[in-house]
Amino acid sequence: MTLNNWLDRDLPAITAALNERHQNFMQEERTLGTAGRERVIQLINLLRSALFPGVYENAPIDEERTDILIGTKLREAAMTISALVHQVLFSECTRAEKESCSGCQGRADYVAQVLLSKLPEIREKLDLDIRAAYEGDPAVRNREEILLSYPFIEAITIHRIAHVLYELKIPVIPRIMSEYAHQRTGIDIHPGASIGKSFFIDHGTGVVIGETCTIGDRVKMYQGVTLGARSFTLDEDGNPVKGIKRHPDIEDDVVIYAGATILGGDTRVGRGSVIGGNVWLIKSVAPYSKVVNSPELSPVVKEGRML
Amino acid sequence: MTLNNWLDRDLPAITAALNERHQNFMQEERTLGTAGRERVIQLINLLRSALFPGVYENAPIDEERTDILIGTKLREAAMTISALVHQVLFSECTRAEKESCSGCQGRADYVAQVLLSKLPEIREKLDLDIRAAYEGDPAVRNREEILLSYPFIEAITIHRIAHVLYELKIPVIPRIMSEYAHQRTGIDIHPGASIGKSFFIDHGTGVVIGETCTIGDRVKMYQGVTLGARSFTLDEDGNPVKGIKRHPDIEDDVVIYAGATILGGDTRVGRGSVIGGNVWLIKSVAPYSKVVNSPELSPVVKEGRML
Amino acid sequence: MTLNNWLDRDLPAITAALNERHQNFMQEERTLGTAGRERVIQLINLLRSALFPGVYENAPIDEERTDILIGTKLREAAMTISALVHQVLFSECTRAEKESCSGCQGRADYVAQVLLSKLPEIREKLDLDIRAAYEGDPAVRNREEILLSYPFIEAITIHRIAHVLYELKIPVIPRIMSEYAHQRTGIDIHPGASIGKSFFIDHGTGVVIGETCTIGDRVKMYQGVTLGARSFTLDEDGNPVKGIKRHPDIEDDVVIYAGATILGGDTRVGRGSVIGGNVWLIKSVAPYSKVVNSPELSPVVKEGRML
Repeated sequence: MTLNNWLDRDLPAITAALNERHQNFMQEERTLGTAGRERVIQLINLLRSALFPGVYENAPIDEERTDILIGTKLREAAMTISALVHQVLFSECTRAEKESCSGCQGRADYVAQVLLSKLPEIREKLDLDIRAAYEGDPAVRNREEILLSYPFIEAITIHRIAHVLYELKIPVIPRIMSEYAHQRTGIDIHPGASIGKSFFIDHGTGVVIGETCTIGDRVKMYQGVTLGARSFTLDEDGNPVKGIKRHPDIEDDVVIYAGATILGGDTRVGRGSVIGGNVWLIKSVAPYSKVVNSPELSPVVKEGRML
Repeated sequence: MTLNNWLDRDLPAITAALNERHQNFMQEERTLGTAGRERVIQLINLLRSALFPGVYENAPIDEERTDILIGTKLREAAMTISALVHQVLFSECTRAEKESCSGCQGRADYVAQVLLSKLPEIREKLDLDIRAAYEGDPAVRNREEILLSYPFIEAITIHRIAHVLYELKIPVIPRIMSEYAHQRTGIDIHPGASIGKSFFIDHGTGVVIGETCTIGDRVKMYQGVTLGARSFTLDEDGNPVKGIKRHPDIEDDVVIYAGATILGGDTRVGRGSVIGGNVWLIKSVAPYSKVVNSPELSPVVKEGRML
Repeated sequence: MTLNNWLDRDLPAITAALNERHQNFMQEERTLGTAGRERVIQLINLLRSALFPGVYENAPIDEERTDILIGTKLREAAMTISALVHQVLFSECTRAEKESCSGCQGRADYVAQVLLSKLPEIREKLDLDIRAAYEGDPAVRNREEILLSYPFIEAITIHRIAHVLYELKIPVIPRIMSEYAHQRTGIDIHPGASIGKSFFIDHGTGVVIGETCTIGDRVKMYQGVTLGARSFTLDEDGNPVKGIKRHPDIEDDVVIYAGATILGGDTRVGRGSVIGGNVWLIKSVAPYSKVVNSPELSPVVKEGRML
């Protein structure tokens, strides 16, 4: 039998099986629906173009008239936010079997207005983040280099946008944003995390910052740092209880070196502390502490011609 | 001399040098040939559209008639698989200096049929993986959020497809698939690894799962876990011997926390065991064991105003 | 108020705020300017097509006449290098308030010539890197598989190109290149790092190699290895001093296993040494040393039915 003949015979049943499964899944679970993921990514790109006109473009723009680019991108972004937010709110209404959804559109428009209104403040914070990177990395020569080549800037730009939507209790969309940042940078910041001013993550691959973290001002960290949960409470059905404080608090002016792991919702790292590389920390430390692995951890060196 | 003049003079020699080197390389090594990598990625995208219609699309689709989308994508996928597999089999025949290659096309068509036939079962497994993620992560609100935003779902979808081709002993193509997943998610699962039902990796960046691993049902792991080789046997020319068991076996219901490293083809983690964060494990442990780093590993905390 | 009315009223002020901030930033910091990042990525893709014709293409090419493809890509690459380098040099001249910039174009053309002239040598080194990967990984079947599916090959190809520009003291552009590689592979190699022949990184996610590292021939390493700075000197304003030796030297034939961290500009790993997984090394070791974590680091195993 040729492949075409086989397809004519067997494809309908395979298609039907896949289709039935997907329709069932979406009937229960639909929130954002089709093409939602790509449209959220388009939205991120619109907002980044407005925040940093020209930087992410494929072709040169008129550098004298970046205001035209910004205005155009913002208007398109507003329409996209409103449409996406309406979609998720409408899905929730439908699932709750409400008769109508009269408030959804108004709320979606409100979300678009809030997010756009916060952009100048977000840009101001991002400028401080760029400055923190400049001051924190001897390898960098100027601040445009940071904007053009530091994965941290992508991650924190997207986080500061996603966090606004998280605070407005919009489902799904902020998480798609943060995973887009994670995919591009290896830095995984949950949109719920609250992050202060002048933040900097160098290199960044493998960083995980959990949903209920709080991070103060002027905190600096390196690749492979985890700010995670220690364990989590299960409900009577054995499922994890959602929405309780599970991740640490990092106060102002803390430095956390590569590979350190800090766990637990009760764990607080006091201001000005330094957490050494690869440290495993599951209890609070006072301000201005220095935490390092014990010298017994030094590796064993066998010198000489071993081969 | 202008750049154009220089190019006219020197470009032919540079081009010839690069061309000769590449022609020599491909003459010895050609398996999939030109544009093969991009076409494998296109294939992955066709299969993912069929498994989760609408989720990866750029523009809205008719949600009532996802069967049309699925059927179209599957038919195109079948042709692509057949063409790509034929290409690698034909290259092998050519290298083996066989007179003809009469079996290659039939085998390529067979591979397309097997892979498509397995898709409903793969989708069923992926639904269990999505459920495992939902039950394993307190930060998630519903199952579409997982589908839209969890890198693990991309990684395991691609793995379950690539593993079918690996089992059919198709060269190169499954590895390109797994590296595409690795690139997008930071999760590096060799297509040879055998993975049970209801699997979940949270965050995922830096996870490495080796070729000869076996993983049971309901296993859960976190970012930075390595299931790797301890060392490998060299043949008489000093090259590593290919195709022997080098990676651990993880039984049902095991949890492995972030940064743990488990090595060796003889290492078996018994069912229901818990492997703590950052643990370095190179021997087997009995079922229901708990493995944690020793308390002497606690870091040294120097409190007080150190600055 | 409808969203459109709100936009008509409030968008001009938001746009103006964002625009003013960006114009101020760029006035101080502009080096590469608009669309520079994407054009550097286009350049990388041109050069990779010339080095490995057909491998990164979207559609089949004429495999008999790869010389035509190579020549075309190289000519376009030459123009792009010249334009991008001119842009950064011109920005520097402008900032230095020089009257004219007569030397910039000549220097930009020279850089294009140097980089193109070095491509045959780069391809020769990459062939050795591919061979090192083949000999170092039991999971791989042939060398085209490495070219098509190993993230390391992407990372080292881009590094060997970026390093030429770094040596020519071109700002920003080499760092954009290395971050593109980092984004795609999780391997973060600063363009300043000097890397010998027959290098290989397996898996690679989370590897960080600092600016002032030197790495000898036949060095092999695994995922999560950091070759980093121990600390850095601050100038009298508290800013890190740029341009001093901060990262280790790795001599020939060293193997560094997953997760090892080697820090400091005075740290030298003698030839033929083996650095074990997760080792934290901040001092030099003699040639042919073996460095492993102490046995006291073994994790505690509590066997039996703990649940």
